[in-house]
Amino acid sequence: MPIDNSNMLKVIEDFPHQCRAALPLAKGIAVSGKVDKIIVAGMGGSAVGGDLLRLYLHDLKIPITTVRDYKLPNFVDENTLVFAVSYSGNTEETLSAFEDATKRKAKIVAVTSGGKLAESAKKVIKIPKGLQPRAALGYIFFPILGVLVNSGIVKENPGDVKEMLDILSNTDDFKSFGESIAKQIGSRTPLIYASEQFGAVAYRWKTQFNENSKVAAFTHNFSELNHNEIVGYQTMSKERFISIFLRDNFDNDRIKKRMNITKDIISQKVDVVEVYTKGNSLLSRLFSALYYADFASYYLALQNKIDPTPVHVIESLKKKLAE
Amino acid sequence: MPIDNSNMLKVIEDFPHQCRAALPLAKGIAVSGKVDKIIVAGMGGSAVGGDLLRLYLHDLKIPITTVRDYKLPNFVDENTLVFAVSYSGNTEETLSAFEDATKRKAKIVAVTSGGKLAESAKKVIKIPKGLQPRAALGYIFFPILGVLVNSGIVKENPGDVKEMLDILSNTDDFKSFGESIAKQIGSRTPLIYASEQFGAVAYRWKTQFNENSKVAAFTHNFSELNHNEIVGYQTMSKERFISIFLRDNFDNDRIKKRMNITKDIISQKVDVVEVYTKGNSLLSRLFSALYYADFASYYLALQNKIDPTPVHVIESLKKKLAE
Repeated sequence: MPIDNSNMLKVIEDFPHQCRAALPLAKGIAVSGKVDKIIVAGMGGSAVGGDLLRLYLHDLKIPITTVRDYKLPNFVDENTLVFAVSYSGNTEETLSAFEDATKRKAKIVAVTSGGKLAESAKKVIKIPKGLQPRAALGYIFFPILGVLVNSGIVKENPGDVKEMLDILSNTDDFKSFGESIAKQIGSRTPLIYASEQFGAVAYRWKTQFNENSKVAAFTHNFSELNHNEIVGYQTMSKERFISIFLRDNFDNDRIKKRMNITKDIISQKVDVVEVYTKGNSLLSRLFSALYYADFASYYLALQNKIDPTPVHVIESLKKKLAE
Repeated sequence: MPIDNSNMLKVIEDFPHQCRAALPLAKGIAVSGKVDKIIVAGMGGSAVGGDLLRLYLHDLKIPITTVRDYKLPNFVDENTLVFAVSYSGNTEETLSAFEDATKRKAKIVAVTSGGKLAESAKKVIKIPKGLQPRAALGYIFFPILGVLVNSGIVKENPGDVKEMLDILSNTDDFKSFGESIAKQIGSRTPLIYASEQFGAVAYRWKTQFNENSKVAAFTHNFSELNHNEIVGYQTMSKERFISIFLRDNFDNDRIKKRMNITKDIISQKVDVVEVYTKGNSLLSRLFSALYYADFASYYLALQNKIDPTPVHVIESLKKKLAE
């Protein structure tokens, strides 16, 4: 039985090249004038780039908000930079948010491979077609960052990018550890935990398990989970669940201590797998933590004899929505 | 076997009275000067009030952000109004966020029943002691809203409050439907879904199941879940999971259609329970949707012969953190 019809493995292995190819795509695209709020509007795989941006640029004095909805928050105005991100260019929520941004006279940059969004927007970052949206994260993240650099909102940091690409290029490390995580998961539901600073990375793990492996997966963050989710373990069992901690050597000391204690407590009920970020720059640590998920979710699909690429239910839902 | 030692049922039944008693607590407390950002810093039950505020005041031109972390975002400055919310007054994350707010010269109002926070803050809304933090939502939400009214940031709306209290006072309706939801859940893991506009209400359901019933529970929002979580249902089964949709007659038409189609699709795999909000004002709809969760999680605890009140694991974690 063919289980990787569209060669998802090759796409995942090529991810460092995708990031390299994505770097120049923002060339010549910038906004001018005051920007005191940044919005990334998108859904699913297209929205994760916005979340990552918020994590990476946490030092910025300008709030960055990801919007996964038909409309934008009421505070969006002419000083707001809105990135409308839709890989296909036809995501209805994003097109609606784009219209909303236009009405509010926001500064808009579209990121898309085509569709109605490419036709409607004045400033467009055109990215290559032919991928699953969730596999195009490099093409989404780096051009957005590029526009912020071109617009004088953030400083260019080629050192960060170089370290990140060097680390990700050791693809086999991610591949073999990802495969081992898939084996440990088996038929259990993975719960992925990280600090608030890495929350969007944990969410990406969840969605990769959903879309590539076609399994349930959930996520929560430290230390909020210490105030609620941890209590649920009282009745949980290792037959149903497995917990994955995404850890970072730069996590705040209290978070590290919380992770250690939480691991001790919940290990009485479920197995706990720990995954550490690699590198020194935040960019490397974010992307290394993300990259494991691509392989883990890919191998979990294969293990369950499921083709990782197609997401038939999303396609059939879209058809029914159009009726 | 006594399973409701601290009379959680009575506290839940008293919730409409708690809201009424909470209304005057902000009397005389206001901030002056420019406010262009609002932050609610808190954890667990104390943070949900901030989420609710953001949903209720979605029309406000000022962004409201809930922060569940040791530090505040870098955009916090002297024009930011920070509510530091800790029921006990000793939550370490909130005390740390409070210090951060002080350093950044933000306008600060503390909401607490005592502890270090009451000692350190200059403006304090003192709320009654003796409840579980998660059971004090009325005492947290309404005084924060009151400060915003007193400060001229939002308009008072006694009509909304009256409708909400009238609806919640029909306690038996919520109680009997809540009990029937608990029966339907049985030993399955509840997944609670709502629109983005009611996302924090779905999260409150999850945390009430965690803390009162001591079970796993997870949440996601429409339409984002149509882009990932729905794919996971391919391998899910009604033995392990049950899905609860929180629905609102004012949901956007596309969201209503998505909910209907999603229900059709996932009903092939799991049971789906639908819960509708009550009332016309957003305040009534938010609080009615919340109130069902109190009873559903209470009865699920009793069904599993678990005392809903104590959360021993949180207490033991706090002790280990202090070592």
